[in-house]
Amino acid sequence: MSRSLHASGAVARADAHPSTTPLDRWLGTKLQSSIARSGVGVELWDGMSFRPDGPHVGDLLIRDRRALIAVLVNPDLQYGELYSAGRIEVRGDLPRVVDAISRLAIDAPLSWRERLALWTERPNALVRARRNIHHHYDLGNDFYRLWLDRQMVYTCAYYPTPDAALEEAQLAKMDLVCRKLRLRPGDTVVEAGCGWGALALHMARAYGVRVKAFNISTEQIAYARDRAWREGLGDRVEFIQDDYRNVSGRFDVFVSVGMLEHVGRRNYASLAAILRRVIDRPNGRGLLHFIGRDRARPLNARTRRRIFPGAYAPPLSEVISDVLEPARLSVLDVENLRIHYARTLRHWRERYTAAESDVRAMFDDAFCRAWRLYLTASEAAFAIGFLQLFQILFVPASADAIRWTRADLYAEPVGAPDAAR
Amino acid sequence: MSRSLHASGAVARADAHPSTTPLDRWLGTKLQSSIARSGVGVELWDGMSFRPDGPHVGDLLIRDRRALIAVLVNPDLQYGELYSAGRIEVRGDLPRVVDAISRLAIDAPLSWRERLALWTERPNALVRARRNIHHHYDLGNDFYRLWLDRQMVYTCAYYPTPDAALEEAQLAKMDLVCRKLRLRPGDTVVEAGCGWGALALHMARAYGVRVKAFNISTEQIAYARDRAWREGLGDRVEFIQDDYRNVSGRFDVFVSVGMLEHVGRRNYASLAAILRRVIDRPNGRGLLHFIGRDRARPLNARTRRRIFPGAYAPPLSEVISDVLEPARLSVLDVENLRIHYARTLRHWRERYTAAESDVRAMFDDAFCRAWRLYLTASEAAFAIGFLQLFQILFVPASADAIRWTRADLYAEPVGAPDAAR
Repeated sequence: MSRSLHASGAVARADAHPSTTPLDRWLGTKLQSSIARSGVGVELWDGMSFRPDGPHVGDLLIRDRRALIAVLVNPDLQYGELYSAGRIEVRGDLPRVVDAISRLAIDAPLSWRERLALWTERPNALVRARRNIHHHYDLGNDFYRLWLDRQMVYTCAYYPTPDAALEEAQLAKMDLVCRKLRLRPGDTVVEAGCGWGALALHMARAYGVRVKAFNISTEQIAYARDRAWREGLGDRVEFIQDDYRNVSGRFDVFVSVGMLEHVGRRNYASLAAILRRVIDRPNGRGLLHFIGRDRARPLNARTRRRIFPGAYAPPLSEVISDVLEPARLSVLDVENLRIHYARTLRHWRERYTAAESDVRAMFDDAFCRAWRLYLTASEAAFAIGFLQLFQILFVPASADAIRWTRADLYAEPVGAPDAAR
Repeated sequence: MSRSLHASGAVARADAHPSTTPLDRWLGTKLQSSIARSGVGVELWDGMSFRPDGPHVGDLLIRDRRALIAVLVNPDLQYGELYSAGRIEVRGDLPRVVDAISRLAIDAPLSWRERLALWTERPNALVRARRNIHHHYDLGNDFYRLWLDRQMVYTCAYYPTPDAALEEAQLAKMDLVCRKLRLRPGDTVVEAGCGWGALALHMARAYGVRVKAFNISTEQIAYARDRAWREGLGDRVEFIQDDYRNVSGRFDVFVSVGMLEHVGRRNYASLAAILRRVIDRPNGRGLLHFIGRDRARPLNARTRRRIFPGAYAPPLSEVISDVLEPARLSVLDVENLRIHYARTLRHWRERYTAAESDVRAMFDDAFCRAWRLYLTASEAAFAIGFLQLFQILFVPASADAIRWTRADLYAEPVGAPDAAR
């Protein structure tokens, strides 16, 4: 695709860098060329702009020469770094621009940096795991309360209909998980990675089960324990501040929603050993809900550095071959909910944007911008199929308590179960 | 477990081998010991018997010394060979005995023979594939008509309720496949491995799509073409006697029910290339329905030799990693229907047993016994989780036409669709 070249913005901004040199303008055309198919243009600090032919989605405003060079050298990391620092700005609708640029990557072969990242991934040892989790989940409950639903569920929701509200969809997600697992009163459940405890409390309250819920985030566990006692469920739900690798005992049910991403594939063998042990019963069953891919690829470099250190979204095949097969577990059902995660992230982003003045009172501007971009880019990634959201239901290989069909999952609206059933 | 030793049957049969020697009896205890946990006993040709402690499920009657040695040396092959030859007989309920012995294998590590079979599997080249398929599927339509449903569907059915009849369940299976694929009037569909054509005809008749259906079995294709013209669908369904590797063109939908087992994993890369090409459209979607495993393991040695040469039931992870991921296809839904295949096989076995006098008019006694055992053992394999039946629904990575939830699959009873919808 050819590019047109406009010298728009007749007067350079007084506070801007010096005017662009021929080299800057050549680099500008290179940058524009790398994103030409997206319909997004490039504008340099002195107003020099480069636009693609065809529909125009928006522009990236590059504020200085070093930003221009950095984003060309390592786009995977630097788009996010420089946007957060205010050295790249977006003119136009941020979600549309991010979506358009994200689509370029979906069929791209892995870069050498991505290959290197896959090879050099380090195991999340216990100490490192604690530090990584603390980094993200202990930003403060007050921060997450600004834009999550009332129950503080920080994982993909399930929208029975596309226009469902976030609160309803998070309840429906918890209920869908309970139904898939066929929870019955008296069942014992272990949950690995319980967040602020909403699912554990829902299972106990609505399905009459007993839950041991593990999490290594200090703030989340404190919040969950407090809520359990306030809601009179303290005798049925035990929140344990410990690593999933320290789960002991046997249970009827294993469930993990949004934790596998933090396990890292170097630890899949130990997860397999735990899974095999904890539900080794004829009526045992388990569910993994996690962000996945449709091929092996590291998460975006900036997400790994700033947002989720140590995180990895595995291909579905890898979870089955490296976690479930070695554990002699049999897959009953896999559902891909990626479009539900795109919707969830849209709702989070809308709430986050509405509450940004409150965020700014807690954190600096770079933090605000970083989270705005993270939520926006995550929505795009799920919407376009760059990331997937899988729920896998499994049982021990010789289990005999298997649902006849999945029709019971849909026999009545999700979200309002009786404890009695 | 200890064994008790009875010298039952006071008088040796007149036509039997000479009496057992001490060595025979020692081998008899070895054989009984290898199946002791099943509750099945062993009786030798002179009436010498070996029974397990605890509940007694039935007995294997070993008719001669060479049979005793052969089954000890290579049980995976010889149980079937010797049963078919009448040199091993079963006293007691055949399905119960087969089920009990099959359960012993489920947690067993792979034997050296199984490892070898995995390593030495040969690719099913075109010529070899034709021979293998001819071996099984060209036994004669009259034979299969004796015990299949009216529509001659020779794959796992789907029972909306456990007490559904076979005819109803095969129709429901075809309808479930159509619903998963969201067939709409005017869609173009390619079917790889179409059997006697029932699904292709159902799709065209009930959903108004146009189908190209491939199969290399001569008898099946002739039957299917005849049926298409008789039912007035000859202009909408084209039956092509050719290998799936020769599929050309692009389609809205790819579907394959019960063919992947015959592809063999050495051909997964070429299947991936075909899949990537044929549904490379924004609204493309595909479904693979196949017999799988929950870990890599060859099929039973006798099944590979006598029943399905060249066949291989892959672990779910292998199909995703070696077929779908290289084709840049994204998994939307996986359903494990193994208990439905156990039920299907029970229905087939019951019909087969009822029609055995007709089978005997077509084939010899060894054939009758071999098929009786094959149907019985297959039922056991699915019932106990030794084999799985997977349906995988997938779309190109960047597809945008994805169902919102699976609720529509269950919104009305399967099996009686309008062509109009």
